[in-house]
Amino acid sequence: MPLENPFYTAEMQGEYELHAIGRFELEEGGVIEDLQLAVATYGELNEAKDNAILIPTWFSGTHATWWQVYIGEGRALDPTKYFIIVVNQIGNGLSTSPHTTDDPSIAMSKFPNVRIGDDVRAQEQLLRETFGIERLALVVGGSMGAQQTWEWAVRFPDKVLRAAPIAGTAQNTPHDFLFTKALLDAITSDPGFAGGEYASHSDVVDGLKRHADIWATMGLTTDFWKTEFWRGIPPLVEGLGWETFEEFQENFIRLIFSMMDPNALLVMGWKWQRGDVARNTGGDLAAALGRITAKVFVMPIEQDMFFPPRDCEAEQALTPNSELRLLHSIAGHFGLFGFEPSYLDEVDSHLKDLLATEA
Amino acid sequence: MPLENPFYTAEMQGEYELHAIGRFELEEGGVIEDLQLAVATYGELNEAKDNAILIPTWFSGTHATWWQVYIGEGRALDPTKYFIIVVNQIGNGLSTSPHTTDDPSIAMSKFPNVRIGDDVRAQEQLLRETFGIERLALVVGGSMGAQQTWEWAVRFPDKVLRAAPIAGTAQNTPHDFLFTKALLDAITSDPGFAGGEYASHSDVVDGLKRHADIWATMGLTTDFWKTEFWRGIPPLVEGLGWETFEEFQENFIRLIFSMMDPNALLVMGWKWQRGDVARNTGGDLAAALGRITAKVFVMPIEQDMFFPPRDCEAEQALTPNSELRLLHSIAGHFGLFGFEPSYLDEVDSHLKDLLATEA
Repeated sequence: MPLENPFYTAEMQGEYELHAIGRFELEEGGVIEDLQLAVATYGELNEAKDNAILIPTWFSGTHATWWQVYIGEGRALDPTKYFIIVVNQIGNGLSTSPHTTDDPSIAMSKFPNVRIGDDVRAQEQLLRETFGIERLALVVGGSMGAQQTWEWAVRFPDKVLRAAPIAGTAQNTPHDFLFTKALLDAITSDPGFAGGEYASHSDVVDGLKRHADIWATMGLTTDFWKTEFWRGIPPLVEGLGWETFEEFQENFIRLIFSMMDPNALLVMGWKWQRGDVARNTGGDLAAALGRITAKVFVMPIEQDMFFPPRDCEAEQALTPNSELRLLHSIAGHFGLFGFEPSYLDEVDSHLKDLLATEA
Repeated sequence: MPLENPFYTAEMQGEYELHAIGRFELEEGGVIEDLQLAVATYGELNEAKDNAILIPTWFSGTHATWWQVYIGEGRALDPTKYFIIVVNQIGNGLSTSPHTTDDPSIAMSKFPNVRIGDDVRAQEQLLRETFGIERLALVVGGSMGAQQTWEWAVRFPDKVLRAAPIAGTAQNTPHDFLFTKALLDAITSDPGFAGGEYASHSDVVDGLKRHADIWATMGLTTDFWKTEFWRGIPPLVEGLGWETFEEFQENFIRLIFSMMDPNALLVMGWKWQRGDVARNTGGDLAAALGRITAKVFVMPIEQDMFFPPRDCEAEQALTPNSELRLLHSIAGHFGLFGFEPSYLDEVDSHLKDLLATEA
């Protein structure tokens, strides 16, 4: 029986549609009998079907941040020009997920392991079967969305004309693997987690808060905290603001993660840890990236602590027809949330340049 | 009754002496009736008593790393020229600590809160009363040792001729506060911690391992893991090596932290979170650093994720008669362990320059 959780609703995340793509066999051997993808679209597909932009989502995220801060008329992601499709990743709480599925064989702790490649294959099927889209003007995503963007460009080179992985890598690093492990262990070590068979996500609130505290350290930057940048961030809940950094941590970062489903975070975390385009080429990263024909802008964020520019630069150097476009945010990795107009201007400027390139 | 823990012995850490300095009143109001400082000395104090170098210890550390990798004939910290005194910080497992004290009023969970300023006052008393030292040729320390180094230079400007804070700040940042909180909560959330009244540190092994996993992410760097630098690090225990990064994490970082006492880590962590020389000047950091008369070399490590160079540079800019001397280690903050000859050469070179300055 699906668990109630108001975080995973259209009221909280914005409108979306569920598209069933049928029985789906996963790379690790599991099966989802009726995979449903939660999809939000903005704009209209033209007759030539050549104005489609795909956006896969990041860890713990949904389509929400994309429509709230990245998509808009006059922006790079302009719904008056493009048909923009945001596909929520498998297990994120909106697409088929441990706590929402009606299928007892994959509910809660029984949810199968999912890989980045599974998401990308499912998205390709969705675009082809549901929308008749055979070619994408752009794939763009942040963090785990960047992992999926890279995977798209490697796996379906003929279908991706342009790609913009933001703050994420094609091959996950061991450091990121360990970081994600620390994040996930904060949840599973909570006695309330009960091996994944909790009765409510709120039973795991202590673990979710410890998870949030690790994010506060690695997801942001020393500068974010030192300059008290949080003073300018509006409260999530009216009347629940903050005067100190401890209150901001409690009423913003801990509050957000406390609303989420623990098993959903675990499914995404397992997937994140193992993101690796070299699985397509027998472990050879250079060969995998060498297959890319898309024009690629690799866009790390300067102070990102776990997808640092140096790791992204190394992959960019292996990618034909690519450029490095460095982004700047005092929030480091969490710059992705678009706290700063200057950051969003940079993203828009780079994506407009990219969309203007011949393909 | 003190708990058995072989980690905190001369066999494991190298020889040291316990010096009792009597009843000690702490800044937070607690009292240690007979404070004992664990002290290791190298070399001899000259008649003028002007060749003394003080080294305070870092979080989770003891004097061990100092004699193993930093002190030696021909090095900057040369025991044939200097009288080098390493004082283990209060609560570190060797100096008076929660699990070793005979005093039930401060044992285990009852151990009082200790501040950086307490350590520095205790060290000053020790040096004066036990060794007759009124002036230090140099104070040098890493991480929490840097916090104590800064505190010495601000609190006792007449006694510190030269100071070298390595990979640490004079005023702890909110980011560091949150990082340390994540570290400590990994321990206290273990049911085996039992509110600090565990029967053996091994009851808390799960929490200590999660603590170690957070260190693996923040204490090292993406480059350290990606380049497999760990392949060149010798095993801690003969026959217990590693072929993968997961095995290195298990048999090195987790193994070390699993040997430690949870309450000792908590005492040090609480202290670290609140390190702030501005407590001497009513909260005015510039005024505090402005009091320093020592020649100061501020020595951050380039890829340090939680005491990054930018935070150290800001303090150096406020310190009269100071220079920034940047260190380089692929291990980031854990570069302090001296894995690389190149890093140790840099440290030696800078400290020799500093010791050669007129004072």
